[in-house]
Amino acid sequence: MSASLDEVLQAIRTGIPLFLERFQECLRIPSISTAPENQPDMLRMSQWLQAEMRRIGLEHVQAYPTPGQPMVYGDWIHAPGRPTVLVYGHYDVQPADPLDEWVSPPFGAEIRDDYIFARGASDMKGQILAQLAAVEAWLAQGTCPVNLKYLIEGEEEIGSPYLDDFIRDHTDLLECDIVLNCDAMIHSAENPSITYALRGLAYFELEICTAEKDMHSGMFGGAVRNPIHVLTEVLSGMHDASGRITLPGFYDHVPTAEDDERALLAKAPYNDAAFLKTAGAFALYGEEGFTTLERLGVRPSLDVNGIWGGFQGEGAKTVLPARAGAKLSMRLIPGQPLDMVEKQLRAYLEAKVPAGCQWNLTCHSIGPGSVMHWKSPYMQAAADALKKVFGKEPFLRREGASVPVVRLLQERLGVDSVMLGFGQPDDGIHGPNEKQSLPVLYKGMESYACFLYNVGRLKPMSVHD
Amino acid sequence: MSASLDEVLQAIRTGIPLFLERFQECLRIPSISTAPENQPDMLRMSQWLQAEMRRIGLEHVQAYPTPGQPMVYGDWIHAPGRPTVLVYGHYDVQPADPLDEWVSPPFGAEIRDDYIFARGASDMKGQILAQLAAVEAWLAQGTCPVNLKYLIEGEEEIGSPYLDDFIRDHTDLLECDIVLNCDAMIHSAENPSITYALRGLAYFELEICTAEKDMHSGMFGGAVRNPIHVLTEVLSGMHDASGRITLPGFYDHVPTAEDDERALLAKAPYNDAAFLKTAGAFALYGEEGFTTLERLGVRPSLDVNGIWGGFQGEGAKTVLPARAGAKLSMRLIPGQPLDMVEKQLRAYLEAKVPAGCQWNLTCHSIGPGSVMHWKSPYMQAAADALKKVFGKEPFLRREGASVPVVRLLQERLGVDSVMLGFGQPDDGIHGPNEKQSLPVLYKGMESYACFLYNVGRLKPMSVHD
Repeated sequence: MSASLDEVLQAIRTGIPLFLERFQECLRIPSISTAPENQPDMLRMSQWLQAEMRRIGLEHVQAYPTPGQPMVYGDWIHAPGRPTVLVYGHYDVQPADPLDEWVSPPFGAEIRDDYIFARGASDMKGQILAQLAAVEAWLAQGTCPVNLKYLIEGEEEIGSPYLDDFIRDHTDLLECDIVLNCDAMIHSAENPSITYALRGLAYFELEICTAEKDMHSGMFGGAVRNPIHVLTEVLSGMHDASGRITLPGFYDHVPTAEDDERALLAKAPYNDAAFLKTAGAFALYGEEGFTTLERLGVRPSLDVNGIWGGFQGEGAKTVLPARAGAKLSMRLIPGQPLDMVEKQLRAYLEAKVPAGCQWNLTCHSIGPGSVMHWKSPYMQAAADALKKVFGKEPFLRREGASVPVVRLLQERLGVDSVMLGFGQPDDGIHGPNEKQSLPVLYKGMESYACFLYNVGRLKPMSVHD
Repeated sequence: MSASLDEVLQAIRTGIPLFLERFQECLRIPSISTAPENQPDMLRMSQWLQAEMRRIGLEHVQAYPTPGQPMVYGDWIHAPGRPTVLVYGHYDVQPADPLDEWVSPPFGAEIRDDYIFARGASDMKGQILAQLAAVEAWLAQGTCPVNLKYLIEGEEEIGSPYLDDFIRDHTDLLECDIVLNCDAMIHSAENPSITYALRGLAYFELEICTAEKDMHSGMFGGAVRNPIHVLTEVLSGMHDASGRITLPGFYDHVPTAEDDERALLAKAPYNDAAFLKTAGAFALYGEEGFTTLERLGVRPSLDVNGIWGGFQGEGAKTVLPARAGAKLSMRLIPGQPLDMVEKQLRAYLEAKVPAGCQWNLTCHSIGPGSVMHWKSPYMQAAADALKKVFGKEPFLRREGASVPVVRLLQERLGVDSVMLGFGQPDDGIHGPNEKQSLPVLYKGMESYACFLYNVGRLKPMSVHD
């Protein structure tokens, strides 16, 4: 049996009403992995997903148990001699709070104008369902241009605690030529993009303690150390006036971006006003000597993600606290050696925290960035697919965020990922009123179908072969 | 009828078992002024106090309503030609949390060794009851050396919102020659002390906002302002390396301590180790060129009392927050002009907060310090009383904390206060396991009796006459 790409694209368009029904059904399951009260919903979601995968014709669909949420697997491997694509996604979502900032219920999946609003709409149920819709259209024609395997996890939003073990224990099951990672974004419908690099992440918690117990600021203020003062001094000293991170040796092993890559990044249709609007921020800020896209892509960053100490309630309390703390994280550049980062932070703290103050530093997690072969035929297959559907050559971008699974799959399976998803930067993922543009998602379905078609015309090969 | 001081002191000693019973009964009423659920207890406490005042022979005892908790008043004005002493106290206490850090229940009034443990034991039910016990012993002998008036408020722990109005509207009722403020401490049983000056307090809340909404630190970190970074930079810059406050002009109008006053302060039986132990702090810190007692007494201070921003929960969340805030307060020196303090802080913020960041500063309260005529006969009467009972000349101290009522009574009634109370610095007021030394409190009763005796031998006169 054979099917033409045009027939498949037509089938996708015809199937949109049914797709929308299923998408809403899926979004109405509050699959919040972190919340104990949503555990039944997590189960319901994994079962819903398996049923959907079976319905469109995938085989060997099952939920592999882990100590946490199960991994949903399925495959279709009836394209001998063709490449095998491992599709990665996750079926869990972030908590929906702050609830009072949602215009429509977070699990109501309300459609307004061209958008569907729901927690998980963009990150990433929309992407999973769009990819399945593309495959459904292929299989409905009786075939698929490539072999497919699915790894849909249920704990991405809580840091994928069992994913590495699972991949390590199932390398045969997951063996493939390329990963299609749907947990991704494009820049916009007018300017599609493909991400080829991701920053790593190191996350720390710092506590400063200057006394056994809280004190009265009148009785002791001005004569003993205030841990909030020490903390603000230490944290504010982590950047110099030019926005550079001051930890000793921090930049020594950050790879320098070559001219051709800086030129590539400069091709992006970027402007300050649009970037600030997307961020919701009032002003740009960062390391001198680099553009905003370079600051996000080829330069590491250090942010305080949270800070606390003393009295935070209504009104006034004249407490001089005994302790204060902060969460801080660094975005690391692929190639930056992980084992030095904590040492550099500790060396800074040793030098900076005054005598007579206790401090404690905990590392919550540390993971490297990753960079893909952006000239590989799989990347080209994705670029061609976007060009065909969106009518414009996508630009290539490095992403500031971290997607640890990309690195895990590089390390365990030796394969690159193509990041192909159809969320947009202003979708408000993880925040209130998360949304997904429906017209863009429909183009996404077609793009996925084209991508599979393009890959099917390649000789099977890992990019590392 | 007449009574000798020795008979009165003997009566105080004999009455201790009964006093202890009443003290425990009083401590078991959880009169937390700030907690709505404790409003019935507040009423019970004011009624208990009125009954006790009537029992010992005070007259015109009544609760004057205010928009908040009532003011309990009573008097005994049968000593014509003698000075009138206005006794100030408060019947409310701080909340008891953190409850799990209490060894015995905060409203159990358990006695262990020489201490009684309860919220309010030291601050200040112990002081009120000790003063009433002294007066009971005098009145039981049929007389009192002075005229007495009582003003016991119920909202000191929440900032006395209606006290100023009440004093202003009742200047005739409260007319007196001197205030005996029992909401006070001594240094120790071995080294009694009298406080003659108090610092003022200005309390502010600062918020920095750099974006409309929280952002993802991967997508935007390193390219936009982080409000926690701005806040830590701003706060840490408020002190220079020598511990001086950097707000423009801040020290211009801080009165310089004269040599004789610095010599007076230096007489205190102070040592670093004991001070740190009392504070529970690990290290001294403060403005260069001044001793610890000078830093607390004659120099202003600035403390961040609370700070918050971003993610404070368990684990890791890579949020780049939109806003961060802090509570900060200054302890002001008597004579430091209040109207400049907020201006100085605003001038600093104008200069320091980078462009593109919104900031908002709220003043919660601002009140001046106060200083008493430490060579006045009333102060001498208190010093003589302490010397007789404790066997040692008390030293004179300036207190770092603020007692706004002292200044209100100076302004409205034109009278000084003698700060005479028997809490000690390590009583843990406002914290868990608040305690009061019973032997010290018994000496306090005798000291109060002697103080009244000594004042009774003075010609009535306000120190301002």
